[in-house]
Amino acid sequence: MLSTTVIKEIIKVVGKENVLTTKEELLCYAYDSTPRAFLPDLVARPCCTAQIQKIAKLANEHLFPLVPRGAGTGLSGGSLPVDGGVVVDLTRMNNILEIDEENLVAVVEPGVITFQIQEEVEKRGLFYPPDPASLKTSTIGGNVAECAGGPRALKYGVTRDYVLGLEVVTPDGEVITTGGKTVKSVTGYDLLRLYTGSEGTLGIITKIYLRLIPKPEAKKTMMVVYDKLDDAAQSVSRIIRGGIIPVTLEMMDDRTIRCVENHKQMGLPLDAEAILIIEVDGPQILLDCQAHEIAKLCQDCGAREIKIAETEEERESIWAARRSVSAAVVQIKPTKISEDISVPRMAIPRMVRRLKEIASRYNLELVIFGHAGDGNLHPNILCDQTDAEEMQRVEKAIGELFKAAVELGGTLSGEHGIGMMKAPYLKVETGEAGFEVMRRIKEALDPNNILNPGKIFRGDSNG
Amino acid sequence: MLSTTVIKEIIKVVGKENVLTTKEELLCYAYDSTPRAFLPDLVARPCCTAQIQKIAKLANEHLFPLVPRGAGTGLSGGSLPVDGGVVVDLTRMNNILEIDEENLVAVVEPGVITFQIQEEVEKRGLFYPPDPASLKTSTIGGNVAECAGGPRALKYGVTRDYVLGLEVVTPDGEVITTGGKTVKSVTGYDLLRLYTGSEGTLGIITKIYLRLIPKPEAKKTMMVVYDKLDDAAQSVSRIIRGGIIPVTLEMMDDRTIRCVENHKQMGLPLDAEAILIIEVDGPQILLDCQAHEIAKLCQDCGAREIKIAETEEERESIWAARRSVSAAVVQIKPTKISEDISVPRMAIPRMVRRLKEIASRYNLELVIFGHAGDGNLHPNILCDQTDAEEMQRVEKAIGELFKAAVELGGTLSGEHGIGMMKAPYLKVETGEAGFEVMRRIKEALDPNNILNPGKIFRGDSNG
Repeated sequence: MLSTTVIKEIIKVVGKENVLTTKEELLCYAYDSTPRAFLPDLVARPCCTAQIQKIAKLANEHLFPLVPRGAGTGLSGGSLPVDGGVVVDLTRMNNILEIDEENLVAVVEPGVITFQIQEEVEKRGLFYPPDPASLKTSTIGGNVAECAGGPRALKYGVTRDYVLGLEVVTPDGEVITTGGKTVKSVTGYDLLRLYTGSEGTLGIITKIYLRLIPKPEAKKTMMVVYDKLDDAAQSVSRIIRGGIIPVTLEMMDDRTIRCVENHKQMGLPLDAEAILIIEVDGPQILLDCQAHEIAKLCQDCGAREIKIAETEEERESIWAARRSVSAAVVQIKPTKISEDISVPRMAIPRMVRRLKEIASRYNLELVIFGHAGDGNLHPNILCDQTDAEEMQRVEKAIGELFKAAVELGGTLSGEHGIGMMKAPYLKVETGEAGFEVMRRIKEALDPNNILNPGKIFRGDSNG
Repeated sequence: MLSTTVIKEIIKVVGKENVLTTKEELLCYAYDSTPRAFLPDLVARPCCTAQIQKIAKLANEHLFPLVPRGAGTGLSGGSLPVDGGVVVDLTRMNNILEIDEENLVAVVEPGVITFQIQEEVEKRGLFYPPDPASLKTSTIGGNVAECAGGPRALKYGVTRDYVLGLEVVTPDGEVITTGGKTVKSVTGYDLLRLYTGSEGTLGIITKIYLRLIPKPEAKKTMMVVYDKLDDAAQSVSRIIRGGIIPVTLEMMDDRTIRCVENHKQMGLPLDAEAILIIEVDGPQILLDCQAHEIAKLCQDCGAREIKIAETEEERESIWAARRSVSAAVVQIKPTKISEDISVPRMAIPRMVRRLKEIASRYNLELVIFGHAGDGNLHPNILCDQTDAEEMQRVEKAIGELFKAAVELGGTLSGEHGIGMMKAPYLKVETGEAGFEVMRRIKEALDPNNILNPGKIFRGDSNG
């Protein structure tokens, strides 16, 4: 609980109209896109870096948690105020400050919706590639804090690869700028990439310099159907090895295909083990040739059907199948636990087998889809949050799923972050020594554990 | 000075034949590619991670510095034992452990020569793009520790963009693995990128997982001559903005052109203000078209002569000019101070003018060349180390040069690192608060300041 002195001080900083304290208001900030909720004590809505600095100084003086928040679309609980305290809502800081067409840099505030940046730069023939599924609602600040990915990461990389500079308010209320408009820098430690993906635990991001690239001329999309998942995985490897890096190489497993078809009759093959959705982009002159080369490789690997979109409508209908996945799978059961493991590309078939075995052993509904080109799978467990016995099985299955990913040389999270949901499992991947390095960094930069406590690290070790 | 107990202990770890202590031997480890030298107390040549762990534990117990070293080709003094202590020579750990053609990953020890990795993967149709000028002699461990760049960084990025995983011995002798064969990971803090470029101050890298890509099919090279440097800079911007990202976009200024021509008569135009060397790569079918599109853009910007290489010999002769630069410029004066500032691409003409003005004010010989596409310039001051008065002017000019780069939105180092040479200037860029964040990370991870003291941070602040 915050003292009335603290509340008064915060009001002095951001103004009464930007402080929320009633239960109804606070409830709107208790959730993100995980099935968990925690009430904050107060929500502050600053409009500038200086206000955030003052709030951080107050937090350090009076020792209350600060939880930075964008649109609350995160899938690992990164913006949940698990220990209460003050949610710092950054959505008022939503200006695109500059689009520097000559240096190919956009300078933005953290609260800008990612899609809005993309629209603005594309009007100018430029391109900001990262495309998390949430891009029409999530904020760029949240994308940077979680190092968001998306289907296009295969060719273009993730958010980290486009962050050229950051302005950050440190836990003790100082402001630092790291990087800027230069594309190359090795000046001291790589704070840029340390803050990117640090999930609001090391600093509050207040300004972002994004690298832009020229917009690709054209794209071409295809859907490939497989009787055997192994053949789909083999195709993924052969395509990339063959020298063409598609923009996206998405996979849906048998269960996902059936869910989507059941939800929206699109004529998907109910007996297929896997579908790949492959898109290439670049100079128009190359695309037909590349599409046919990829089609041939898929055929050689045993594909049963290949559909290359010849019109924009055909392209749309292919993507409609992929985009329906989330809506379709929640028809099965009300709660969706969306995981995000990543394995070496060639380990996908083994990982899928392990996942199916775990789900069957715990008698759980599981669908698997994701970014096959990156080895980044989203196993989604479908369950009912109100069924305590089922949720216990889910918990156990998740523990095994992470262990399996690490055993196959993989990682707990490809693009959603650790947040609070995966914090109990962090050491499975990092080991004691790696965990200790991260813990020491947190302690050194935020000795009072003000910023986003209970995230990344287990509650019992740190906050 | 090391006690005889310590020396005996180190001999026990690596064997007598891998411990060097005579002055003659130590002198071979006192230098790198900067004009400075410092004698170590001892050189240890471990062959494996376990030996390095033991040495680190000894260092922490007896409090002596450890200075990791590859081939000693660094340009910022990163491997100089400025406080004496033990140089850890990693060149015995020189095995390519695995080239995983299916996952496109190479696993290597730190002492492998970078060029050797490139040769091995290219035999298999794969490609490791980073190409620091030193690549035929420098080790991959040194490349990672300094986050080396090179001409191809424009299209392909720097070393950081290819490090997928690292095994690191921490200053207290623990071993951690961060990342691995997965291409995506957001599991906890980004230790991978924190260690990359940390110049041996946070850990000793003992194993590296490198991302490989398919080898581009073909390349095409051209040389473009300009009467005005501004027109060259304008061309750089127009080319990149136009949608074609060349592999390299190298620049030589008037003074560099004259040095090279004077050294090796190649027919370079002595009255030109700038030359660009531009190379594109990719599918053969695109290259002629791209080369002509670039040529047209350059012409529109006022280029006076454009030479597109039609044969491998012509390509070689264009690159010969660029490769002669280092040998040519040392003909003028014996000492070459090679700087490495990076500015936003469009600030190149202003930066070049500032550089020339500074050099003229201090009456110094200056040549400027570098990676114009990245805004990464190498101003080289040519002087005589034995001339104390001149060296004082050099020192002052360097301070101004860094200030100018930062004022133009740039950075102290694009690809050489801070090491000891730029440590006194670090705060010019980071400010007090940014410096403090870096200092706290160092202190948290290496509380006894064992690893590579005197680097990145000023001697008076840390080590």
